[in-house]
Amino acid sequence: MAVEVVYRSSRDPERLFMDKAEADRHDKMLELAELLSEALHKAVPSLSENQSEELGIYMARNRDVFAKAFKNQPDALAELGSQPQAE
Amino acid sequence: MAVEVVYRSSRDPERLFMDKAEADRHDKMLELAELLSEALHKAVPSLSENQSEELGIYMARNRDVFAKAFKNQPDALAELGSQPQAE
Repeated sequence: MAVEVVYRSSRDPERLFMDKAEADRHDKMLELAELLSEALHKAVPSLSENQSEELGIYMARNRDVFAKAFKNQPDALAELGSQPQAE
Repeated sequence: MAVEVVYRSSRDPERLFMDKAEADRHDKMLELAELLSEALHKAVPSLSENQSEELGIYMARNRDVFAKAFKNQPDALAELGSQPQAE
């Protein structure tokens, strides 16, 4: 038995990581998801809180694809599967 | 009186432009909006058709801000007003 270091994002304290870089990525993903959820809910107030959250998480998880689409390649969106993607 | 050239996007035939570059921009914005609406509706099936459309148009109109947010600056989303923006 030994003491070991684990890492977590304060936004999601239940999820522990052995690797700090992975914890950082998770934290950044959640930060983007939160800001997206807020922005989209403000823009389309008829969205429920759940819908806003789902949209934020989905887009943040697929950040690279959306970055391309918004930059100059809308067709990049075709890369999105309909399955929720692993992080 | 004279014959004159006007431009329009086939995605929005009622809107006429005197300037071809403006018509192009409008067409590109609508293309991105459509693809976003589809992708978001697939990801969050509880969205109504209207909600998906509103989200797509809103994000496509504010494409530069979302491009920054997805690239590496989530804080860019603070630039979004709650007002619908001019194109």
